[in-house]
Amino acid sequence: MPIDLNADAGESYGAWTLGSDAALFPYLSSVNIACGFHAGDSRTILHTLELAAQNNLAIGAHPSFPDRVGFGRRDMNLIPEEIYADVLYQIAALEGMAKTQGLKLHHIKAHGALYNQAARVADTARAIAQAVFDFDKHLPFVGLPHSQLEQAALEFGLPFMAEAFPERAYSPNGQLAPRGMIGSSIHDPDLAAARAVQMAAGRVETINGAILEMPVQTLCIHGDNPNAVQIARAIRAALEQAGIEVRTY
Amino acid sequence: MPIDLNADAGESYGAWTLGSDAALFPYLSSVNIACGFHAGDSRTILHTLELAAQNNLAIGAHPSFPDRVGFGRRDMNLIPEEIYADVLYQIAALEGMAKTQGLKLHHIKAHGALYNQAARVADTARAIAQAVFDFDKHLPFVGLPHSQLEQAALEFGLPFMAEAFPERAYSPNGQLAPRGMIGSSIHDPDLAAARAVQMAAGRVETINGAILEMPVQTLCIHGDNPNAVQIARAIRAALEQAGIEVRTY
Amino acid sequence: MPIDLNADAGESYGAWTLGSDAALFPYLSSVNIACGFHAGDSRTILHTLELAAQNNLAIGAHPSFPDRVGFGRRDMNLIPEEIYADVLYQIAALEGMAKTQGLKLHHIKAHGALYNQAARVADTARAIAQAVFDFDKHLPFVGLPHSQLEQAALEFGLPFMAEAFPERAYSPNGQLAPRGMIGSSIHDPDLAAARAVQMAAGRVETINGAILEMPVQTLCIHGDNPNAVQIARAIRAALEQAGIEVRTY
Amino acid sequence: MPIDLNADAGESYGAWTLGSDAALFPYLSSVNIACGFHAGDSRTILHTLELAAQNNLAIGAHPSFPDRVGFGRRDMNLIPEEIYADVLYQIAALEGMAKTQGLKLHHIKAHGALYNQAARVADTARAIAQAVFDFDKHLPFVGLPHSQLEQAALEFGLPFMAEAFPERAYSPNGQLAPRGMIGSSIHDPDLAAARAVQMAAGRVETINGAILEMPVQTLCIHGDNPNAVQIARAIRAALEQAGIEVRTY
Repeated sequence: MPIDLNADAGESYGAWTLGSDAALFPYLSSVNIACGFHAGDSRTILHTLELAAQNNLAIGAHPSFPDRVGFGRRDMNLIPEEIYADVLYQIAALEGMAKTQGLKLHHIKAHGALYNQAARVADTARAIAQAVFDFDKHLPFVGLPHSQLEQAALEFGLPFMAEAFPERAYSPNGQLAPRGMIGSSIHDPDLAAARAVQMAAGRVETINGAILEMPVQTLCIHGDNPNAVQIARAIRAALEQAGIEVRTY
Repeated sequence: MPIDLNADAGESYGAWTLGSDAALFPYLSSVNIACGFHAGDSRTILHTLELAAQNNLAIGAHPSFPDRVGFGRRDMNLIPEEIYADVLYQIAALEGMAKTQGLKLHHIKAHGALYNQAARVADTARAIAQAVFDFDKHLPFVGLPHSQLEQAALEFGLPFMAEAFPERAYSPNGQLAPRGMIGSSIHDPDLAAARAVQMAAGRVETINGAILEMPVQTLCIHGDNPNAVQIARAIRAALEQAGIEVRTY
Repeated sequence: MPIDLNADAGESYGAWTLGSDAALFPYLSSVNIACGFHAGDSRTILHTLELAAQNNLAIGAHPSFPDRVGFGRRDMNLIPEEIYADVLYQIAALEGMAKTQGLKLHHIKAHGALYNQAARVADTARAIAQAVFDFDKHLPFVGLPHSQLEQAALEFGLPFMAEAFPERAYSPNGQLAPRGMIGSSIHDPDLAAARAVQMAAGRVETINGAILEMPVQTLCIHGDNPNAVQIARAIRAALEQAGIEVRTY
Repeated sequence: MPIDLNADAGESYGAWTLGSDAALFPYLSSVNIACGFHAGDSRTILHTLELAAQNNLAIGAHPSFPDRVGFGRRDMNLIPEEIYADVLYQIAALEGMAKTQGLKLHHIKAHGALYNQAARVADTARAIAQAVFDFDKHLPFVGLPHSQLEQAALEFGLPFMAEAFPERAYSPNGQLAPRGMIGSSIHDPDLAAARAVQMAAGRVETINGAILEMPVQTLCIHGDNPNAVQIARAIRAALEQAGIEVRTY
């Protein structure tokens, strides 16, 4: 089974730069491009699309809550109609811009607080799924396995790509360990790479050492780590060495 | 020859309402919908699209400079690459949202200060034309006759809809009289209606009483006047009474 | 005992108008002026300050979550440091602008979702209280009686003005009835006026007809109701007729 | 005569970092802190104020046009009333936040396109001067010598600090050479340092080698250059070696 390697991208804004897209992209098979609500502006989007095309990456829209100063990381209490409309606007903007570069949207992945809220709140997950469905019912969306997002994808008959995080620790119940917790982030490239190989084989090791079966189609690499490129390189190399094809679905 | 009647629409924002779209739309044949940069937000766009569909109106994107607090009415010195990307983003967002309602984008009309800058600055006009061309080379765009916008449409082989303003006075040289000037706005519905009939026949009367030949395909009605609905009703009635078909191109 | 009559004000934004400040102000003794995060912009603030001065009103800062498109009405999960800094910025902007008009800030009242979050979440209430304390330890702040805001004011030794809402229904436990609930808003000016007189005397009638003792120093009139002016006039008249002095503390 | 060394500061925004404030501040005597319109947010302002206090720097407000995505570098056509109100809002926000740290505002310096517009357009310069005057008539403001800003300071009786740029080339007429021009920026720390010493002595060498008399009170170091810290260190060292005291006025 092949595995997709994705990262959030295009998260610069105006004069401000964030992440190392150009250095990171060669190790990926897909990217989730910020749509202007938490990060990204029209020129950054165009530039990121070009860069993705040069690296033959599948491109996804990465919609967020409307919270630029908070980088979309703060939970917001929107009603489903607001989530629906905001997601639709962002997908549409990205897809239309991609079209001008001869690219097609490959998937949707919600950002930050919206991703997390959609994992646990059915109404949020359904509002996103409805927007994706109304926009293009063949568009996969990416989320945590066994989440409300996966459930919503099922309800709407949308293709779902289950995602795991080689750089994140997992609780015994299979959830991501809270970010504040000591050890919740894995900074060692070799450890992250070993976990990526394990995850590509459908297994996740939790913080208490148990191995959970958790088949996923895509692995997320955090692009905003200082050593993001080093980790991406290690993960890519380890996967290829293990004979696992890195490509999107 | 038929004539198109257009108005700017969807210019509310969040909790704030502007214009009387629901009352105005029955008199129009097309609308230019704000895309979120000077006015409009994702829910307002969806609501405006629905309303346009109910009234069988042709829908246009109404992109602007990124200046919400100034309502896109203040000239900004963007480089062509910024104008190109901003226009593309806004067109894309609107078209993608329209698609979910089974609607297709019919035209592009720049807003406020961007419209005016594009009328007189070739680089601005070309940046907009390039964005429209790259997005959909069959999309007409609307502008002043004999403007840099018309010239840019010609260069790119884009369909152009020349526009006149029944509620605005015209200088002897055929330009719109500056807004600050006394008498630059026409508030009397009957006078506006008479001018609309004249304009539909390709003639514009200037402030010094001369009649200029100025063939146009569309007339713009300002939706933010207190008596916008009354003026729209008078114009529509006068056109129909004169045997001029009101429909878009 | 006198009673203060307050309303939120300056909630227009750029080209968009909201509320009827000029018509409403003659009936009030104080206003809470939007600071630019949920509503208000620099010119609107100046204009509102002038109008407040003309009507001899006490002026308060009305800080909000940074959510303009949601009008500050959507709960946001900010950390206390973010709330502290955002509130400080908004108070400072308003106070400095007031100074240029020869006015002094009289009080602070959080807006919308921030007000509600601060009523129930101690950390939020304390972050606001800390900002007020650091800015000016003699500045009263306004909130619901028996709320976390009152508790935080107590902790910081800040003067507190307890507030009641003549146009809102109260649950048997003395809390505001949820806005969605049928009957949660009172639209009849006479009923609102009668409730205002009762509240000025320290009593609130709940939806089940019970009378709770709830001494308050200020009553809030909603300025964004269609009949806000009518209600304000009725409340003011009823209070004066009952011999209750309307003035701020 | 002592000389002030200033730099723009606090130009990060939310999750985005810009400049190297902590490394640069030890070489400066004053900073111009972004107020939230082109850069800066409430927490960044607080953090920058703390850092400035630790380094004993004089703090200035650095107001801008409302253009975050353009970093305040794009000319905007605001009317004087808009400029006045926007500048006042920004100064007020900064001063009030500074007060909570026991700091007092020392000066005002307009940012980017607003600075340049105010140098050449009298109405813009006067709108800024009026805002400064109304806020605090003893507050100096910083600008180009012989500019409309200096003229406006004179008219309003405001203290003026003339500024020169060691890293920028000057045209024969004493104006800054346009940024696009080859050689308009000086990247060599030693050359910049030599020019700084010359400028501190009231002389500027133009691109054609002529020496103009141009007495200034402050020199600006660009904080967003990759080698900003190196240049600042070289300038500071050269000034001290030349026996010129580096301190603010």
